[in-house]
Amino acid sequence: MKTLNVGDYLLHRLQQAGIRHLFGVPGDYNLQFLDSVIAHPEIAWVGCANELNAAYAADGYGRCHGAAALLTTFGVGELSAINGIAGSYAEYVPVIHIVGAPASRAQQQGDCVHHSLGDGDFHHFLRMAQEVSTASAVLTAENAVEEIDRVIAEALHKHRPGYLLLAVDVAATEIRMPDAQPAAPVHQDTAVATAFAAAAERLLAPAQRVALLADFLASRWQLQSPLFALRQLRAIPAATLLMGKGVLDEQQAGYVGTYAAEGSSDQVRRAIEETDVTLCVGVRFTDTLTAGFTQQLPAERVIDLQPFHATVGGECFAPLSMAQALAALLPVYQRHCAHWALADTASCEEIEQNDDAVISQRAFWQAMQRFLQPGDIILADQGTAAFGAAALRLPPGAQLLVQPLWGSIGYTLPATFGAQTAQPDQRVILIIGDGSAQLTIQELGSMQRDGQQPIIFLINNDGYTVERAIHGAEQRYNDIAQWNWTALPHAMSVQCAAQSWRVSETVQLTAVMEQLMLNRRLTLVEVVMEKQDLPPLLRKVTAALHQRNGG
Amino acid sequence: MKTLNVGDYLLHRLQQAGIRHLFGVPGDYNLQFLDSVIAHPEIAWVGCANELNAAYAADGYGRCHGAAALLTTFGVGELSAINGIAGSYAEYVPVIHIVGAPASRAQQQGDCVHHSLGDGDFHHFLRMAQEVSTASAVLTAENAVEEIDRVIAEALHKHRPGYLLLAVDVAATEIRMPDAQPAAPVHQDTAVATAFAAAAERLLAPAQRVALLADFLASRWQLQSPLFALRQLRAIPAATLLMGKGVLDEQQAGYVGTYAAEGSSDQVRRAIEETDVTLCVGVRFTDTLTAGFTQQLPAERVIDLQPFHATVGGECFAPLSMAQALAALLPVYQRHCAHWALADTASCEEIEQNDDAVISQRAFWQAMQRFLQPGDIILADQGTAAFGAAALRLPPGAQLLVQPLWGSIGYTLPATFGAQTAQPDQRVILIIGDGSAQLTIQELGSMQRDGQQPIIFLINNDGYTVERAIHGAEQRYNDIAQWNWTALPHAMSVQCAAQSWRVSETVQLTAVMEQLMLNRRLTLVEVVMEKQDLPPLLRKVTAALHQRNGG
Repeated sequence: MKTLNVGDYLLHRLQQAGIRHLFGVPGDYNLQFLDSVIAHPEIAWVGCANELNAAYAADGYGRCHGAAALLTTFGVGELSAINGIAGSYAEYVPVIHIVGAPASRAQQQGDCVHHSLGDGDFHHFLRMAQEVSTASAVLTAENAVEEIDRVIAEALHKHRPGYLLLAVDVAATEIRMPDAQPAAPVHQDTAVATAFAAAAERLLAPAQRVALLADFLASRWQLQSPLFALRQLRAIPAATLLMGKGVLDEQQAGYVGTYAAEGSSDQVRRAIEETDVTLCVGVRFTDTLTAGFTQQLPAERVIDLQPFHATVGGECFAPLSMAQALAALLPVYQRHCAHWALADTASCEEIEQNDDAVISQRAFWQAMQRFLQPGDIILADQGTAAFGAAALRLPPGAQLLVQPLWGSIGYTLPATFGAQTAQPDQRVILIIGDGSAQLTIQELGSMQRDGQQPIIFLINNDGYTVERAIHGAEQRYNDIAQWNWTALPHAMSVQCAAQSWRVSETVQLTAVMEQLMLNRRLTLVEVVMEKQDLPPLLRKVTAALHQRNGG
Repeated sequence: MKTLNVGDYLLHRLQQAGIRHLFGVPGDYNLQFLDSVIAHPEIAWVGCANELNAAYAADGYGRCHGAAALLTTFGVGELSAINGIAGSYAEYVPVIHIVGAPASRAQQQGDCVHHSLGDGDFHHFLRMAQEVSTASAVLTAENAVEEIDRVIAEALHKHRPGYLLLAVDVAATEIRMPDAQPAAPVHQDTAVATAFAAAAERLLAPAQRVALLADFLASRWQLQSPLFALRQLRAIPAATLLMGKGVLDEQQAGYVGTYAAEGSSDQVRRAIEETDVTLCVGVRFTDTLTAGFTQQLPAERVIDLQPFHATVGGECFAPLSMAQALAALLPVYQRHCAHWALADTASCEEIEQNDDAVISQRAFWQAMQRFLQPGDIILADQGTAAFGAAALRLPPGAQLLVQPLWGSIGYTLPATFGAQTAQPDQRVILIIGDGSAQLTIQELGSMQRDGQQPIIFLINNDGYTVERAIHGAEQRYNDIAQWNWTALPHAMSVQCAAQSWRVSETVQLTAVMEQLMLNRRLTLVEVVMEKQDLPPLLRKVTAALHQRNGG
């Protein structure tokens, strides 16, 4: 029987989970484990400038790659990362968070060691992590195999973070490689699927107007293909919420636009709400994506597929996975869809034409629409960027990464680094505001160190425009320190091969975009825009938020 | 009776606690409260680039000013800051952390609002905060006055963070100004102090060799003056640990150097350990400050003053504040100190002379010793900077800010911003490594926005030298992205008045230091040093850590 140490075993299981990169920051409680990482033939170490950025990068990698792993040190490192982990928890990204911890003996003795609170309690941060993890374990030499397998399996199954506390001595302990593979959790029940299909058929058979609303959970559970297949049978009206954009092929017949309840265009709202049945696949209604919960989709005419259950007209079927439910729905759809109204193609949303000389939100998004190519990975930060991106019609195979539920500004810059690490050959485009980019700018250095070539559109609208829209339009707290954005790529790399532009006129922006078609280099385009200008969706949403927050 | 809203009342109490600045980042759940902040005549808003930096800045402010306040938004903001708060908890800095939260109604309904985990539980982050706060409250219109008073009083008393969750509607609620001032907690007991003094006298009366060891808790409870008075009576050997440097006047007779157990010079170790009685005031023994707990100070010959109790030869006296115990000790000291041996002045530590042409650690710290002036505030980041600073002999009135227990790298750069905000007229000097500065570089922009003029020595030793010393000297994980450090001040300010230098020879460093005596501008000096070079103390400490971590 082969022996190896606990650290090696953990890497072996990460590799089996398809993970090829480990993001993080070294610290003296994880250095020995890092030796195993460096020695591992299949998993590459990706050092980040700080732990929050590393957590965001891992999240971006996980969204593009299915799962991710993060390594930090005890206390200082893990707590710096915890906001990123919370985002992965809220938005269903399986990130395995490995925390290098003080030696077991120091913990047992309650020693006053660095990176502890000095009170001898070594479980403060474990308890904090448990609030934002689907599974956690304090690894010991005895439980390591079982607990590593349990936490990784649970994280992958639930698509949420798992936490592993790995003391330096435990990482180095020699163990025997188990013979058996860890069993994948099975939650299949054919009888439930059959009952679900029958209930769905009772609703769908007499229906005339059926619509499809897909969202991010369908994307996390990788249901792009079955959704495409369903829509090939009949081009019923189909929309996503902003958070799920990319899960539906937006060039396929029937696509009507981004649904945002009262924040939507009237055509999109009616296409999704004025139906006999609306099929919801992986949908979560969040305040900012529904203009404050204004969706009109009564349970009695909704078939709602969630990760581990489904409801039909309010009746719940469980346990039932989303994939299983979708498979059971396919023959029902096939039998009845000929009677369902086709989507009104005239109702499809388009970004307004315009001829603004200075770069307005309208002009920017129209130029961006033309710039996009099939297969692009687009990241849009919370704020004007994400809400503006809602109006884009994505090319085939394009993905949009946004974080509207957790909504942590600055997330997308390190997530771009992670996404480009996961998909080195894809074109990765980041759209981010100046206020947001300041939070996490350091990974500009990591991108360059690793020779990455994403294209960054930095919207310089002089501070927190999204906050101005909600409250305090001219208040000083919505201003930020003003940076020389185009100088930053050079400042963050001694061997800078990046190109930078600053544009304030639409013709300049389109000229730069044309040039970007010709070469691949890391690019930062500072796009100067008016600080009170908003994409239309954001205007509606912030009005609703303003009201909910009490004005 | 005057009415005001809850937000105004909170600011009123912060002002009474002596707080004049509120650090933080705006978010849509705290904007209305920010209107109260902007309108407040005595409390200034200090926006930071991100929340972790804001927490560090507040901590640095608190160390210089006695107490501090931090404002973040729910979920994303508070969790980004929580590592900074944990540092304030571990190292006893009272930071009042105010978190703007969703409207009470949304919380009661369990709405899926942004910045929540989407599961309807709004107390995840409260529970996390409670692990690193001495007091916390969920404010309501009904409990606001009482709970604000309780949390602030408790935080000030315990010198640790307090957490206030302030929903947008609660902040805006009109309340009546209470007539009474909040009562300060009193934990005085004269009988205990008398018994303590008697016990101390039994130990001290026959003693020949008495030494004083003071540490950071004496600094937090502001006992500089009584300690100075005590030492004026008799120049017994006196030392601090690294964490407490500055609490003793290092120019006063009797000062022997920085005590680090086996990490100390032999003279310092013997002056403190080979005694009949060692007076410990506010001391905590941490692994990195004692070369792995190698102190030889058996309880039977120690008088140990802690914040809320004291021990004499192992016997505990409580409740007894450190100030009260020190006051009770003064007459005992006075009666007997004539018999105690004076410090051997020849034993005082000096930084080695050297004539290294390239800037070695020796050359750097010798130059720094000459550069220091009375009243300087020096911040040294965890790593070569803090351990090198241990050998400095501080000028009168100088303060050293280090974070060796929590040990979060990058802390000192935003803390410099906070310290300079607290003490705008003092010269603030930051010494930080390149690996550390990358974590938190953004506040270079905030410093410039606010016209601050700290002097930053950026030690560029090509990565994490402190980690190299512990493990993996040449491993890739201890490398970092290489930045153009001298370009950063300009990149982070459109109106940059900063000056930057890059030096690699000792004559260059001393020439720059001479020039810095002549002008006050924000300055960044990139000091290029060899990546394996270590200050002597760090060499001893890392050898001990290496062994504790299992090699």
